[in-house]
Amino acid sequence: MRWIRFDNNGTPTYGILEGDTVKVVTGDPFDGYEETSETRAFGDVKLLVPVVPKVFYAAGLNYVDHIMEYAAKTGREPNIPPEADVGYRANNALIAHGETIVIPKDATERVEYEAEIVVVIGKKAKDLTEANALDCVLGYTIGNDMSERSWQKSDRTLWRAKNTDTFKPMGPWIETDAKLEDMETIVRLNGEETIRFKTNKMLFSVQTFLARMSKYMELQPGDVVWMGTEGSSPQVKHGDVIDIEITGVGTLSNPVVRAS
Amino acid sequence: MRWIRFDNNGTPTYGILEGDTVKVVTGDPFDGYEETSETRAFGDVKLLVPVVPKVFYAAGLNYVDHIMEYAAKTGREPNIPPEADVGYRANNALIAHGETIVIPKDATERVEYEAEIVVVIGKKAKDLTEANALDCVLGYTIGNDMSERSWQKSDRTLWRAKNTDTFKPMGPWIETDAKLEDMETIVRLNGEETIRFKTNKMLFSVQTFLARMSKYMELQPGDVVWMGTEGSSPQVKHGDVIDIEITGVGTLSNPVVRAS
Repeated sequence: MRWIRFDNNGTPTYGILEGDTVKVVTGDPFDGYEETSETRAFGDVKLLVPVVPKVFYAAGLNYVDHIMEYAAKTGREPNIPPEADVGYRANNALIAHGETIVIPKDATERVEYEAEIVVVIGKKAKDLTEANALDCVLGYTIGNDMSERSWQKSDRTLWRAKNTDTFKPMGPWIETDAKLEDMETIVRLNGEETIRFKTNKMLFSVQTFLARMSKYMELQPGDVVWMGTEGSSPQVKHGDVIDIEITGVGTLSNPVVRAS
Repeated sequence: MRWIRFDNNGTPTYGILEGDTVKVVTGDPFDGYEETSETRAFGDVKLLVPVVPKVFYAAGLNYVDHIMEYAAKTGREPNIPPEADVGYRANNALIAHGETIVIPKDATERVEYEAEIVVVIGKKAKDLTEANALDCVLGYTIGNDMSERSWQKSDRTLWRAKNTDTFKPMGPWIETDAKLEDMETIVRLNGEETIRFKTNKMLFSVQTFLARMSKYMELQPGDVVWMGTEGSSPQVKHGDVIDIEITGVGTLSNPVVRAS
């Protein structure tokens, strides 16, 4: 099942996408919903981010080649995390599929994408085991963890490097039937493929993260966990379009502009 | 004016506190409200955290003595931030005035409070200057940035050190008339004063933080910024009660238990 969230004359509303038809619901996929008789053509709706989380978790460094390539680029030692210690991103930076990533005027040229599978939590969960961890997952969406690398290096935190407004595209929808082990992540910059990797080839699995996190935190419906990215990214610039496809989930596409 | 948020038979509801009387409103202090004729006795209401923010900002290291004393305790070089780079905390950890801080079973004895003034944003704000930064502030509340220092040292992020469930008491209310320059922060552990400091004697002021943050992020109504703490804390343990008073704002009080 594919859950979309769209702008219904100013009211964020959930719908179920079947082919090109959106079946409008009341309520939401987290606290319960009822289908209505109302439908929309998918092409006519303005998509919103599929959920605004209570907590926006991010695995950070979670693919080996990404860590090695980032280390090589920055001349630092590779920083392979010894444990699945989760990090955070910020809701202000979220934008939907199709919306524009705006690079601030004073950013350097070192602006890069990071293509990530996003786990969407469907129900409250505490003290999960790796065996039952996926039971609390509603489905998956796609995230682009846009990063300004000079700020990532210079600043004490990731605040503007990763959480500048528009730096967190997420969408286009939540897919509930996809399986992690079948997914492949493919990035295209202006239509040209730049990387392709097995989505589930992570340093720490989704199950490992959820089990460890839920030992200290009750996960909440609507929380999201961005699982990190593989490889490295070319610099992106004004006029580019970034497409992130995850097979079985969909494609998140966003244009880029530089503020003038 | 004092804004409280309370549990109204299961519905989070705002009220204006005058003396011991709560004037119930419809709406909220951020998007607009109307007073009703309904009132409650303050002693009869169950307080909730005064707001659940869209983004939960935290200044982190922002008082010189705290930085020096933490460095001395850990045998590290003092880490004086060169810029007002803001960090984040997580909503799962929020609890209200009076609710119980639960130290996890596997935490060490190195659990400490941090008494902080909390800025509550009242309206959207972008590209603030230091001169007009306080115009977007609705008021102030109090935060206790509970921290497990062994995890703070060992982990790659602050996830469980600072964001374990119940580790972020915030309240009791939002005070809109207090002035930063008049405030004094006083902590009492089991009734005995442990520290007292000028709340506004910060490394980077509220104005400096808001101006810098809003260059990259549109601040949203309900966002909170925890401004850091001064000095050091004794270890807190099962059975303790932590009171944080900020003059002109109020007192945030929470008991502590250790999970068994």
